[in-house]
Amino acid sequence: MLKPTAVLLIAHGSRRSEANDDLVRLADVIRGKRLYPIVETAYLELVEPGIASAGEKCVALGATRVKLLPYFLSAGAHVAEDLEQYRRELAGRFPDVVFELCPPLGLHPLMIEIVLDRLGSA
Amino acid sequence: MLKPTAVLLIAHGSRRSEANDDLVRLADVIRGKRLYPIVETAYLELVEPGIASAGEKCVALGATRVKLLPYFLSAGAHVAEDLEQYRRELAGRFPDVVFELCPPLGLHPLMIEIVLDRLGSA
Repeated sequence: MLKPTAVLLIAHGSRRSEANDDLVRLADVIRGKRLYPIVETAYLELVEPGIASAGEKCVALGATRVKLLPYFLSAGAHVAEDLEQYRRELAGRFPDVVFELCPPLGLHPLMIEIVLDRLGSA
Repeated sequence: MLKPTAVLLIAHGSRRSEANDDLVRLADVIRGKRLYPIVETAYLELVEPGIASAGEKCVALGATRVKLLPYFLSAGAHVAEDLEQYRRELAGRFPDVVFELCPPLGLHPLMIEIVLDRLGSA
């Protein structure tokens, strides 16, 4: 039985649809893993849905825990503060639901492998 | 004997030093792999060194091939065209050196693993 934990993937939001589409494709792949019963997407800027409405949707779908995942190579103070504020607002609106802000992608060891692979040397 | 192939890691360039520093740390790790004798960094905007001067440095260090690696989650038409123009200009200035533009990070299969790891479920 899957726990009602939702994943909310958050990208910056771009005027280029390709960048935004990547997040939707990522969500499809994560859904396919069947690790989380709810997988939604949101954008910090420019593109709908925003974080507040996507978080709301996770709750409407039955989530008791929502993991906010920044799909960013890094998250500086500005982005980190914005995301934390969204998290706090959602937590205030839905006190029975746990909202958790995950770290951004960052220099994960696998990121090195991706770079090497793109260089054609993996 | 290592071939004189250079890696030129290219990030967007940010007012936040943490984001720029990630590229320098990435270069250090790639250097440590000893797969490429020359590993340099450059930024598309805002931050020095720019791509032209970093490419020039790779040649000065003896590179006969330079792999330009966009450290971007995705590269839309604008970024892709800018990078291709830098590549073309470098190739024109140094006709004996091969300049190759690699794909950006993109939705590499390992990117899914990074996301899952950041979600705490890897």
